Amino acid sequence: MALSVIVWVNPLTPLAMTATNLPAWSEKLAPRLKSQIEFLVAIDALKSVYRASHIASNERRENSAEHSWHLTMFARILAEHANEAVDIERVIFMLMVHDIVEVDAGDTPLHGQQNPEQEANEQAAATRLFGLLPDDQSLLLRQCWDEFEAAQSADARFAKALDRLQPVLLNALTEGGTWKDYEVSLDQVTSRTAQIGKGSDTLWDMANAIFNEAVDHGWLKTARPADLS
Amino acid sequence: MALSVIVWVNPLTPLAMTATNLPAWSEKLAPRLKSQIEFLVAIDALKSVYRASHIASNERRENSAEHSWHLTMFARILAEHANEAVDIERVIFMLMVHDIVEVDAGDTPLHGQQNPEQEANEQAAATRLFGLLPDDQSLLLRQCWDEFEAAQSADARFAKALDRLQPVLLNALTEGGTWKDYEVSLDQVTSRTAQIGKGSDTLWDMANAIFNEAVDHGWLKTARPADLS
Repeated sequence: MALSVIVWVNPLTPLAMTATNLPAWSEKLAPRLKSQIEFLVAIDALKSVYRASHIASNERRENSAEHSWHLTMFARILAEHANEAVDIERVIFMLMVHDIVEVDAGDTPLHGQQNPEQEANEQAAATRLFGLLPDDQSLLLRQCWDEFEAAQSADARFAKALDRLQPVLLNALTEGGTWKDYEVSLDQVTSRTAQIGKGSDTLWDMANAIFNEAVDHGWLKTARPADLS
Repeated sequence: MALSVIVWVNPLTPLAMTATNLPAWSEKLAPRLKSQIEFLVAIDALKSVYRASHIASNERRENSAEHSWHLTMFARILAEHANEAVDIERVIFMLMVHDIVEVDAGDTPLHGQQNPEQEANEQAAATRLFGLLPDDQSLLLRQCWDEFEAAQSADARFAKALDRLQPVLLNALTEGGTWKDYEVSLDQVTSRTAQIGKGSDTLWDMANAIFNEAVDHGWLKTARPADLS
């Protein structure tokens, strides 16, 4: 089943999840535990942030919480294919945390129109959401997310590679998925997923085999004549 | 919004996700990588296994993939409250893996009727699903899941405690959630979530404060007169 309508709802944090609206029992908690619970409740909203990608059964779009879980399993299972030595526990931590800012800022699809305010929105989201935690944990998660975003360490490069690879697999399993939704070309997808190659040559080879087959199926467009001039 | 109809669909593995139905590009992969990709594709189906719990916004039920992600964050943030010294990376690994068998065996709600064949179904699921992986990784995940199920190590006790705690929080945020759906009593919930106390006295105290407030709200029934005789 193809999903023909593309709608993103930039979710407002539901009332039930705001820090000031926790039930009375939370008032009796030690302040540190209370902060931790407020954070864990707030991030429940990531289950309502829908991505462009279709899940493999093609029944619906994927949300960012289940995507994050799937990526932790990608990291654990595919660790040996990293180009560089990585601390896989740190990679997993980054992937657990990497989309939490979307609770406030929403998801920006890789192949969709980019929002010029997205980076500022994500920075504000990081400040609010990680700021719910006790200071030491707030700093830990913020540093983890900053490292992922910067993609300058071996761990972050591999984490980013997996974050780019997983939707490629989902598209390959859903008759083109977001490539067809957005009329993506081979050049575009190769450019936008190049992070895979920075994390793993092996997985980049696989991605390119997938792209070539997708062209054969007509799921990815080849370069237009105008692009070849 | 309360969800009034309780339906579980024991998901058959969708055709698109069976190992024999991967696209042609997968045939060219090295056998080890091919096995790894088959596993990562198969477990995508965990996103379609719905639990009894409502997500905090109360818009729908939670699926086991996003639940697993949420639990990894519980482990990372609440580690300091474990009764015993734990290796939190191992706890996180257990929580990543703990529900994968539900891809084949489905979820058994804590407060619902127990299926006498569930354990056998889960064992068969573990054999099939972890068996998709290369032997060394298959063994690693099987041992991880077995340790979680046995709940005899400090790491597994804490992982189990979090797996029991998270739905308590969701029920507290959704006006009783599954407690109301299943007409659960205080005695029942105290007994069925006792694993929380084995993992963390602090979190067990919090759970009991939540239970007491739920009784005040009428979300949990008190013991019936017949139980007091």
